[in-house]
Amino acid sequence: MQGFYFDELTVGQTAEMSRVVGAADIEAFAEVSGDSNPVHLDEAYAKTTTFGQRIAHGMLSAAYISAILGTRLPGPGAIYLSQSLRFRRPVKIGDLVVARVTVKALDESRGHVTLETACEVSGKTVVDGEALVIAPRRAT
Amino acid sequence: MQGFYFDELTVGQTAEMSRVVGAADIEAFAEVSGDSNPVHLDEAYAKTTTFGQRIAHGMLSAAYISAILGTRLPGPGAIYLSQSLRFRRPVKIGDLVVARVTVKALDESRGHVTLETACEVSGKTVVDGEALVIAPRRAT
Repeated sequence: MQGFYFDELTVGQTAEMSRVVGAADIEAFAEVSGDSNPVHLDEAYAKTTTFGQRIAHGMLSAAYISAILGTRLPGPGAIYLSQSLRFRRPVKIGDLVVARVTVKALDESRGHVTLETACEVSGKTVVDGEALVIAPRRAT
Repeated sequence: MQGFYFDELTVGQTAEMSRVVGAADIEAFAEVSGDSNPVHLDEAYAKTTTFGQRIAHGMLSAAYISAILGTRLPGPGAIYLSQSLRFRRPVKIGDLVVARVTVKALDESRGHVTLETACEVSGKTVVDGEALVIAPRRAT
């Protein structure tokens, strides 16, 4: 199983994943979430908005952050306690989103890991925030 | 278009949506997010975890909150600025998740709306937190 036990984590440790957001991803996310806001789905409506075109759901970028936490760092066995998210810029169809998490603090007594979390497009932050997870302990 | 302009919002105003989380929803969310953590997808693995069975991605419940903000309250035209999320209990396959947002504060000068956001299963909070959005202004 990929991933890290608490005692394998160090401050500054980082993991990332990248995804090109396609129209099909936005449509799939709308379907599974029930978020049919036309700014995501309706090109004609989206042109009338401040964004000028269809944009991805902010929570899709957040889901990429969650994916790294659950599969890479700490990985399977981690328990997600909290996440803060600031939606700073829109993600458009065809954008390459780079999601990254970085260990910021370790609380040995509780097994808590604080991570800085962010998504970027072309080097600009689109979403950022902080996650708190419990990392798995090695079986003793 | 459903939804509310800033001047139609009042503190205490609320909207909710409900969804039964099926295995297919979890699989679709894993696909679109890239979050293939086996606690969501692998029954045999999930049985070995503290949860004892497959659970939904926490971000799936968060996506329901986002769906209400984007389609109901304030609705289309709202701009999502930030969201905090505390993952308090797991959501299991077959659970009926009730997501709810409630207007907590209105900042007239900036058009900012603060909302309490939560998801419940059987009356118990599974996710809670706070959202900050810009509500659309009426064309003048």
